[in-house]
Order: sequence, then structure tokens, then C-alpha cells
Amino acid sequence: MRDDVRDDVLKRLSYIEGHLAGIRKMIEDDRYCVDILKQSYAVRRAIEKIEALILNGHLHTCVLEGIRGDRQEQVLGELLELYELANK
Amino acid sequence: MRDDVRDDVLKRLSYIEGHLAGIRKMIEDDRYCVDILKQSYAVRRAIEKIEALILNGHLHTCVLEGIRGDRQEQVLGELLELYELANK
Amino acid sequence: MRDDVRDDVLKRLSYIEGHLAGIRKMIEDDRYCVDILKQSYAVRRAIEKIEALILNGHLHTCVLEGIRGDRQEQVLGELLELYELANK
Amino acid sequence: MRDDVRDDVLKRLSYIEGHLAGIRKMIEDDRYCVDILKQSYAVRRAIEKIEALILNGHLHTCVLEGIRGDRQEQVLGELLELYELANK
Repeated sequence: MRDDVRDDVLKRLSYIEGHLAGIRKMIEDDRYCVDILKQSYAVRRAIEKIEALILNGHLHTCVLEGIRGDRQEQVLGELLELYELANK
Repeated sequence: MRDDVRDDVLKRLSYIEGHLAGIRKMIEDDRYCVDILKQSYAVRRAIEKIEALILNGHLHTCVLEGIRGDRQEQVLGELLELYELANK
Repeated sequence: MRDDVRDDVLKRLSYIEGHLAGIRKMIEDDRYCVDILKQSYAVRRAIEKIEALILNGHLHTCVLEGIRGDRQEQVLGELLELYELANK
Repeated sequence: MRDDVRDDVLKRLSYIEGHLAGIRKMIEDDRYCVDILKQSYAVRRAIEKIEALILNGHLHTCVLEGIRGDRQEQVLGELLELYELANK
């Protein structure tokens, strides 16, 4: 992973950890379930954004190198697996 | 939320927090992106499981009471909104 | 289902059938895969919109009647099942 | 698209068209909404399976050629776009 991508991902991860701590407090304080669920959806959206950043970095490094080298079947198989897992 | 549901949800939340800390370490250690992404998908699945528990509790408390009381439009509107948001 | 909802759903279904016929033609004409995939995603979005209409109708009829009657456990269990299935 | 992949995709598309016709009949016959929704989810799953087949073919043809040729940025950008659109 490039340094600037890693920094961005780690910063977003910190934000998500804070968001989860907020959800924990909402649950402990017995807040309205609908509000808790909306926050939980927002956390999942934020995680998906991190995944897109990591995937983009992966495409431009390992996938490029793998296809130009001799690991073409491996990197393409992994991409398809990731695509299918992401929606499960 | 019923006490046993809240305990279960908080326990699962602790597990997710630990899982995210593991992902942070993987990123810092420059581990293979595909492995990081798979762990990230697993975290999202775990969050969805928590959401199902919270929603189930919500259905059996606020939704029941709202429909038997006079807040029927509110609780049904919220359910539809949650359903649509969950897939976004 | 209310008559106006059914009419709306059937009209949207006709549109989806036409959209799928267009995708079939794109495949037979050997069009660019990326363009085919984008059309396929659009069809899934259109199906989800129909599902939201049907679910909304279901909430305001069967769920209301079930909760006010004696089938509360059944309708709530089904709602949770639908919610989980929708994301699978 | 390779001929055997195209044949498989078109066969699955015919199945989906039949499945949608079944859903239309369920709606016209005023069948239980929960049953209709479950059939609709099944159709979306079947469409996703077709998408995986098309994507797999795309990876092994256009993406390989693009990366080995000079359209690397285009094919990688499209892959990321597809990945993000697939979940929307």
C-alpha cells in the first residue's frame, strides 16, 4: 500500500473506532433502536469506503504486477472472489 | 432493549472492536490487501448480525406498542426507511 | 395489495422485462462487458424499488392486521426474515 | 465473451425471464406479499450470478489485454467503478 493511502485508511479507521464507541454509548444509554441502527448503517458505509481505497491500491500494485508477471490466474481469481464476498 | 439482548449486542460489539484493531495492525504491518479486505468483509457481516438483533428487539417492543397504540404511521414509516437504508 | 400499488408494481415489472430484453440483445451483439454489467446493476436497483413498494403495502395491511389480531409472532418473524434475506 | 460463457449467461437469462413471469402471475393472483418478496430476492441472486460470470470473462479477456497493452488506467478504473456500483 502506498504511504498516503495507508495514512488515509488508518485515519478513517480511527474515525470508525470513534463512531463504534458512540454506538456503544447509545446502546448503554438505551437510546431509540432506530437511531442506533442508522448509525450502524453509517459505520458500514464508512468501512466500505475504506475497502474501496484498499482495493484501488491493490489494483494499481499487486494486480498490475501479477498480470505483467506470472501470477495472472491468482490475482484474477482473487478479484472475482473479493467481488463475490463483498456482496454476501 | 431487553437486558439479555443488550448484553449480547455489547459483547458482539467488543468482538468487533477487537477485530478492527486486528485490521489496523494488518494495515500497519503492510499485510496483503486481499487478506485485509476479507477481514473487513467479516467485520461488516458481524455488524449486520448486531443490526438483526437490534431490529428484532425493536419489532417486539416499539413496533408492537406503536401499532397497538397510536403511532402506527411512524413505526411503519421507520421500518420501511430502515429496510431501504440497510441496502444502500 | 391495494389496486394502485399492484398497478404500479406491474408497470414497473413490464419495464424491467423490457430492460432484461435489452441486456439479452447486448450480450448477443457482443457489447462491452462493462456496459452490460452496468445495465444489470440498474435492473437490480429497479427490482429493489418494486420490493420496497410491495413491502410498504405489506406493512400497512397484513402486518397491521396481524399485530392487531393474533398473528403477531408470525408477521414479526417474517419481517425479520425478509430483512435478512434482502441483504444476502 | 467466450462462446460457452455467453451460452451459459443467455440460458440463465431465460430462466430469470421465466422466474419474473412467475412473479407477475403471483402479483396478479394476489398471492401473499412475503412469498412474492422471497421470489424477488431469488431473482436478484440469479442476476448477481450472471454478473459474476460476465465479470469473470471480462477479467480474463479485456482486463488482461488492457493491462498488457496500454489501457491499464481505463480497465482498472472501470473495475473499481463496477465494484462500487455493484453494492449501491
